[in-house]
Amino acid sequence: MRHTISVLVENRFGVLARVAGLFSGRGYNIESLNVAETLEPGVSHMTIVTSGEDHVIEQIIKQLNKQIDVIKVIDLNDTDFVDREMALIKIHAPPELRAEALRVVDIFRAKVVDSSPKHYSIEVTGSRDKVEAIINLLRPIGIKELVRTGSVALQRN
Amino acid sequence: MRHTISVLVENRFGVLARVAGLFSGRGYNIESLNVAETLEPGVSHMTIVTSGEDHVIEQIIKQLNKQIDVIKVIDLNDTDFVDREMALIKIHAPPELRAEALRVVDIFRAKVVDSSPKHYSIEVTGSRDKVEAIINLLRPIGIKELVRTGSVALQRN
Repeated sequence: MRHTISVLVENRFGVLARVAGLFSGRGYNIESLNVAETLEPGVSHMTIVTSGEDHVIEQIIKQLNKQIDVIKVIDLNDTDFVDREMALIKIHAPPELRAEALRVVDIFRAKVVDSSPKHYSIEVTGSRDKVEAIINLLRPIGIKELVRTGSVALQRN
Repeated sequence: MRHTISVLVENRFGVLARVAGLFSGRGYNIESLNVAETLEPGVSHMTIVTSGEDHVIEQIIKQLNKQIDVIKVIDLNDTDFVDREMALIKIHAPPELRAEALRVVDIFRAKVVDSSPKHYSIEVTGSRDKVEAIINLLRPIGIKELVRTGSVALQRN
Protein backbone atom coordinates (compact mmCIF):
# COMPACT_ATOMS: atom_id res chain seq x y z
CA MET A 1 0.00 0.00 0.00
CA ARG A 2 1.18 3.54 -0.78
CA HIS A 3 2.02 5.62 2.31
CA THR A 4 2.59 9.38 2.52
CA ILE A 5 4.83 10.24 5.44
CA SER A 6 5.45 13.71 6.81
CA VAL A 7 8.75 14.22 8.65
CA LEU A 8 9.87 17.40 10.43
CA VAL A 9 13.66 17.48 10.90
CA GLU A 10 16.44 19.68 12.19
CA ASN A 11 18.27 20.69 9.04
CA ARG A 12 21.66 19.34 10.14
CA PHE A 13 24.29 17.96 7.80
CA GLY A 14 23.50 14.41 6.81
CA VAL A 15 19.92 14.20 8.07
CA LEU A 16 18.58 13.57 4.56
CA ALA A 17 21.11 10.80 3.94
CA ARG A 18 20.23 9.20 7.29
CA VAL A 19 16.47 9.35 6.69
CA ALA A 20 16.81 8.00 3.13
CA GLY A 21 19.16 5.29 4.47
CA LEU A 22 16.46 3.99 6.84
CA PHE A 23 14.26 3.19 3.84
CA SER A 24 16.98 1.71 1.63
CA GLY A 25 18.37 -0.27 4.57
CA ARG A 26 15.11 -2.22 4.63
CA GLY A 27 15.03 -2.59 0.89
CA TYR A 28 12.24 -0.04 0.62
CA ASN A 29 12.17 2.24 -2.33
CA ILE A 30 11.22 5.89 -2.00
CA GLU A 31 8.74 6.70 -4.77
CA SER A 32 9.04 10.43 -4.21
CA LEU A 33 10.58 12.65 -1.57
CA ASN A 34 10.92 16.34 -1.14
CA VAL A 35 12.50 18.44 1.52
CA ALA A 36 12.43 22.20 1.93
CA GLU A 37 12.50 24.93 4.55
CA THR A 38 9.68 25.69 6.98
CA LEU A 39 8.83 28.94 8.76
CA GLU A 40 11.25 28.03 11.54
CA PRO A 41 14.92 28.65 10.74
CA GLY A 42 16.94 25.43 10.84
CA VAL A 43 13.88 23.21 10.57
CA SER A 44 12.99 21.43 7.32
CA HIS A 45 9.97 19.43 6.30
CA MET A 46 10.07 16.23 4.22
CA THR A 47 7.24 14.46 2.48
CA ILE A 48 8.06 10.87 1.59
CA VAL A 49 5.89 8.59 -0.54
CA THR A 50 6.69 4.89 -0.39
CA SER A 51 4.85 1.66 -1.08
CA GLY A 52 5.05 -1.46 1.02
CA GLU A 53 3.75 -3.65 3.80
CA ASP A 54 2.03 -1.69 6.56
CA HIS A 55 4.03 -3.38 9.34
CA VAL A 56 7.38 -2.55 7.70
CA ILE A 57 6.34 1.08 7.23
CA GLU A 58 5.40 1.11 10.92
CA GLN A 59 8.89 -0.13 11.82
CA ILE A 60 10.51 2.53 9.62
CA ILE A 61 8.42 5.20 11.35
CA LYS A 62 9.51 3.91 14.77
CA GLN A 63 13.13 4.13 13.65
CA LEU A 64 12.59 7.63 12.23
CA ASN A 65 11.23 8.68 15.63
CA LYS A 66 14.44 7.49 17.29
CA GLN A 67 16.67 9.68 15.11
CA ILE A 68 18.05 12.62 17.03
CA ASP A 69 17.43 15.08 14.16
CA VAL A 70 13.81 14.04 13.72
CA ILE A 71 11.31 16.31 15.45
CA LYS A 72 8.01 14.74 14.38
CA VAL A 73 6.81 11.96 12.06
CA ILE A 74 3.25 11.43 10.87
CA ASP A 75 2.02 8.60 8.65
CA LEU A 76 -0.61 10.65 6.85
CA ASN A 77 -2.44 7.47 5.87
CA ASP A 78 -3.64 7.33 9.49
CA THR A 79 -5.27 10.73 9.01
CA ASP A 80 -7.40 12.61 6.52
CA PHE A 81 -5.15 14.68 4.25
CA VAL A 82 -4.99 16.76 1.06
CA ASP A 83 -2.06 15.98 -1.23
CA ARG A 84 -0.94 17.65 -4.42
CA GLU A 85 2.07 17.60 -6.64
CA MET A 86 3.41 19.83 -9.38
CA ALA A 87 4.95 18.81 -12.68
CA LEU A 88 6.78 20.85 -15.30
CA ILE A 89 6.39 19.25 -18.71
CA LYS A 90 8.24 20.41 -21.82
CA ILE A 91 6.44 19.29 -24.96
CA HIS A 92 7.11 19.49 -28.66
CA ALA A 93 4.92 22.24 -30.05
CA PRO A 94 5.28 22.49 -33.80
CA PRO A 95 2.54 24.73 -35.27
CA GLU A 96 0.29 21.80 -36.28
CA LEU A 97 0.15 20.42 -32.72
CA ARG A 98 -0.24 23.64 -30.76
CA ALA A 99 -4.03 23.82 -30.77
CA GLU A 100 -4.29 20.26 -29.45
CA ALA A 101 -1.62 20.94 -26.80
CA LEU A 102 -3.42 24.08 -25.60
CA ARG A 103 -6.70 22.18 -25.42
CA VAL A 104 -5.12 19.68 -23.03
CA VAL A 105 -3.60 22.54 -21.00
CA ASP A 106 -7.04 24.11 -20.77
CA ILE A 107 -8.88 20.95 -19.75
CA PHE A 108 -6.43 20.36 -16.89
CA ARG A 109 -6.29 24.03 -15.85
CA ALA A 110 -2.57 23.84 -16.45
CA LYS A 111 -0.44 26.86 -17.48
CA VAL A 112 2.07 27.44 -20.24
CA VAL A 113 5.00 28.92 -18.28
CA ASP A 114 7.51 29.16 -21.12
CA SER A 115 7.44 28.85 -24.88
CA SER A 116 10.00 28.73 -27.65
CA PRO A 117 9.61 28.27 -31.40
CA LYS A 118 9.56 24.47 -30.93
CA HIS A 119 8.42 23.83 -27.36
CA TYR A 120 5.93 24.71 -24.68
CA SER A 121 6.75 24.28 -21.00
CA ILE A 122 3.66 23.46 -19.00
CA GLU A 123 3.02 23.65 -15.27
CA VAL A 124 0.32 21.44 -13.79
CA THR A 125 -0.69 20.83 -10.18
CA GLY A 126 -3.08 18.34 -8.67
CA SER A 127 -3.40 14.85 -7.33
CA ARG A 128 -1.01 12.18 -8.54
CA ASP A 129 -3.83 10.79 -10.72
CA LYS A 130 -4.45 14.15 -12.36
CA VAL A 131 -0.75 14.64 -13.09
CA GLU A 132 -0.53 11.16 -14.58
CA ALA A 133 -3.64 11.78 -16.68
CA ILE A 134 -2.22 14.93 -18.30
CA ILE A 135 1.11 13.17 -18.88
CA ASN A 136 -0.75 10.39 -20.69
CA LEU A 137 -2.62 12.87 -22.88
CA LEU A 138 0.53 14.84 -23.74
CA ARG A 139 2.60 11.75 -24.50
CA PRO A 140 1.27 11.32 -28.08
CA ILE A 141 2.02 15.03 -28.73
CA GLY A 142 5.60 14.39 -27.61
CA ILE A 143 7.10 15.01 -24.17
CA LYS A 144 10.68 16.24 -24.31
CA GLU A 145 11.29 16.61 -20.59
CA LEU A 146 9.35 16.03 -17.41
CA VAL A 147 10.11 16.95 -13.81
CA ARG A 148 7.78 16.19 -10.92
CA THR A 149 8.03 17.51 -7.39
CA GLY A 150 6.46 14.46 -5.77
CA SER A 151 3.54 14.91 -3.38
CA VAL A 152 3.30 17.41 -0.58
CA ALA A 153 0.45 17.04 1.87
CA LEU A 154 -1.47 18.82 4.63
CA GLN A 155 -3.61 17.17 7.28
CA ARG A 156 -7.29 18.03 7.08
CA ASN A 157 -8.36 19.39 10.45
CA MET B 1 25.79 31.50 -4.68
CA ARG B 2 22.61 29.45 -4.99
CA HIS B 3 22.87 26.56 -7.49
CA THR B 4 20.05 24.47 -8.94
CA ILE B 5 21.30 21.04 -9.94
CA SER B 6 19.38 18.51 -12.02
CA VAL B 7 20.35 14.85 -11.52
CA LEU B 8 18.97 11.88 -13.43
CA VAL B 9 19.49 8.61 -11.52
CA GLU B 10 18.74 4.91 -11.69
CA ASN B 11 16.20 4.42 -8.95
CA ARG B 12 18.23 1.80 -7.04
CA PHE B 13 18.18 1.29 -3.30
CA GLY B 14 20.32 3.82 -1.55
CA VAL B 15 20.95 6.21 -4.45
CA LEU B 16 19.24 9.08 -2.61
CA ALA B 17 21.29 8.48 0.55
CA ARG B 18 24.49 8.38 -1.54
CA VAL B 19 23.70 11.58 -3.43
CA ALA B 20 22.69 13.43 -0.25
CA GLY B 21 25.84 12.09 1.43
CA LEU B 22 28.07 13.74 -1.19
CA PHE B 23 26.74 17.13 -0.14
CA SER B 24 26.80 16.56 3.62
CA GLY B 25 30.28 14.98 3.36
CA ARG B 26 31.59 18.36 2.22
CA GLY B 27 29.64 20.21 4.86
CA TYR B 28 27.21 21.50 2.24
CA ASN B 29 23.63 21.90 3.19
CA ILE B 30 20.84 21.02 0.79
CA GLU B 31 18.34 23.87 0.80
CA SER B 32 15.72 21.85 -1.04
CA LEU B 33 15.65 18.54 -2.86
CA ASN B 34 12.99 16.56 -4.58
CA VAL B 35 13.04 13.26 -6.34
CA ALA B 36 10.27 11.59 -8.32
CA GLU B 37 9.66 9.26 -11.23
CA THR B 38 10.28 10.12 -14.88
CA LEU B 39 8.68 8.67 -18.01
CA GLU B 40 11.26 5.91 -18.04
CA PRO B 41 10.59 3.07 -15.58
CA GLY B 42 13.41 2.73 -13.03
CA VAL B 43 14.75 6.22 -13.69
CA SER B 44 14.15 9.09 -11.26
CA HIS B 45 14.89 12.78 -11.50
CA MET B 46 16.20 14.93 -8.64
CA THR B 47 16.34 18.69 -8.37
CA ILE B 48 18.74 19.90 -5.71
CA VAL B 49 19.11 23.50 -4.57
CA THR B 50 22.23 24.32 -2.57
CA SER B 51 24.24 27.43 -1.77
CA GLY B 52 28.01 27.63 -1.70
CA GLU B 53 31.31 28.38 -3.37
CA ASP B 54 31.25 27.70 -7.10
CA HIS B 55 34.41 25.58 -7.05
CA VAL B 56 33.07 23.30 -4.30
CA ILE B 57 29.80 22.84 -6.20
CA GLU B 58 31.90 21.94 -9.25
CA GLN B 59 33.72 19.28 -7.23
CA ILE B 60 30.42 17.86 -5.95
CA ILE B 61 29.15 17.65 -9.54
CA LYS B 62 32.30 15.80 -10.62
CA GLN B 63 31.76 13.33 -7.80
CA LEU B 64 28.09 12.94 -8.72
CA ASN B 65 29.15 12.10 -12.26
CA LYS B 66 31.35 9.28 -10.94
CA GLN B 67 28.48 7.58 -9.11
CA ILE B 68 27.41 4.41 -10.86
CA ASP B 69 23.68 5.16 -10.41
CA VAL B 70 23.95 8.67 -11.79
CA ILE B 71 22.97 8.97 -15.47
CA LYS B 72 23.29 12.71 -16.01
CA VAL B 73 24.04 15.85 -13.96
CA ILE B 74 23.44 19.43 -15.05
CA ASP B 75 24.28 22.54 -13.06
CA LEU B 76 21.37 24.59 -14.32
CA ASN B 77 23.16 27.80 -13.35
CA ASP B 78 25.33 27.21 -16.44
CA THR B 79 22.18 27.32 -18.60
CA ASP B 80 19.02 29.34 -19.02
CA PHE B 81 16.21 27.69 -17.07
CA VAL B 82 12.66 28.09 -15.75
CA ASP B 83 12.14 27.10 -12.12
CA ARG B 84 9.02 26.92 -10.05
CA GLU B 85 7.97 25.53 -6.74
CA MET B 86 4.67 24.75 -5.08
CA ALA B 87 3.63 25.40 -1.49
CA LEU B 88 0.59 24.25 0.45
CA ILE B 89 -0.22 26.71 3.22
CA LYS B 90 -2.84 26.13 5.90
CA ILE B 91 -3.98 29.41 7.41
CA HIS B 92 -6.31 30.40 10.19
CA ALA B 93 -9.51 31.64 8.61
CA PRO B 94 -11.92 32.91 11.24
CA PRO B 95 -14.82 34.79 9.62
CA GLU B 96 -13.29 38.25 10.22
CA LEU B 97 -10.06 37.37 8.35
CA ARG B 98 -11.49 35.49 5.38
CA ALA B 99 -11.95 38.43 3.06
CA GLU B 100 -8.34 39.54 3.58
CA ALA B 101 -7.08 35.96 3.11
CA LEU B 102 -9.00 35.58 -0.14
CA ARG B 103 -7.66 38.91 -1.41
CA VAL B 104 -4.10 37.63 -0.96
CA VAL B 105 -5.04 34.34 -2.66
CA ASP B 106 -6.44 36.33 -5.55
CA ILE B 107 -3.46 38.65 -5.97
CA PHE B 108 -1.08 35.67 -6.16
CA ARG B 109 -3.37 33.60 -8.37
CA ALA B 110 -3.27 30.97 -5.67
CA LYS B 111 -6.10 28.48 -5.04
CA VAL B 112 -8.01 27.44 -1.94
CA VAL B 113 -7.79 23.64 -2.17
CA ASP B 114 -9.47 22.78 1.12
CA SER B 115 -11.48 24.62 3.73
CA SER B 116 -12.82 23.83 7.17
CA PRO B 117 -14.73 25.98 9.68
CA LYS B 118 -11.43 27.38 11.01
CA HIS B 119 -8.88 27.00 8.20
CA TYR B 120 -8.18 27.45 4.53
CA SER B 121 -5.56 25.36 2.74
CA ILE B 122 -3.98 27.29 -0.09
CA GLU B 123 -1.93 26.06 -3.05
CA VAL B 124 0.48 28.48 -4.67
CA THR B 125 3.05 27.96 -7.43
CA GLY B 126 5.74 30.23 -8.78
CA SER B 127 9.30 31.32 -8.31
CA ARG B 128 10.91 31.06 -4.92
CA ASP B 129 10.47 34.84 -4.51
CA LYS B 130 6.76 34.68 -5.27
CA VAL B 131 6.24 31.84 -2.79
CA GLU B 132 8.14 33.77 -0.11
CA ALA B 133 6.13 36.91 -0.86
CA ILE B 134 2.77 35.19 -0.30
CA ILE B 135 4.10 33.51 2.86
CA ASN B 136 5.08 36.94 4.20
CA LEU B 137 1.63 38.35 3.43
CA LEU B 138 -0.18 35.42 5.02
CA ARG B 139 1.98 35.36 8.13
CA PRO B 140 0.07 38.18 9.93
CA ILE B 141 -3.22 36.35 9.18
CA GLY B 142 -1.74 33.26 10.83
CA ILE B 143 -0.04 30.30 9.14
CA LYS B 144 -0.81 27.01 10.85
CA GLU B 145 1.16 24.72 8.56
CA LEU B 146 3.38 25.11 5.52
CA VAL B 147 4.87 22.55 3.15
CA ARG B 148 7.01 23.46 0.16
CA THR B 149 8.09 21.15 -2.63
CA GLY B 150 11.36 22.95 -3.31
CA SER B 151 12.18 24.03 -6.86
CA VAL B 152 11.85 21.96 -9.98
CA ALA B 153 13.36 23.30 -13.19
CA LEU B 154 13.43 22.88 -16.96
CA GLN B 155 16.16 24.11 -19.27
CA ARG B 156 15.03 26.77 -21.72
CA ASN B 157 15.83 25.54 -25.21
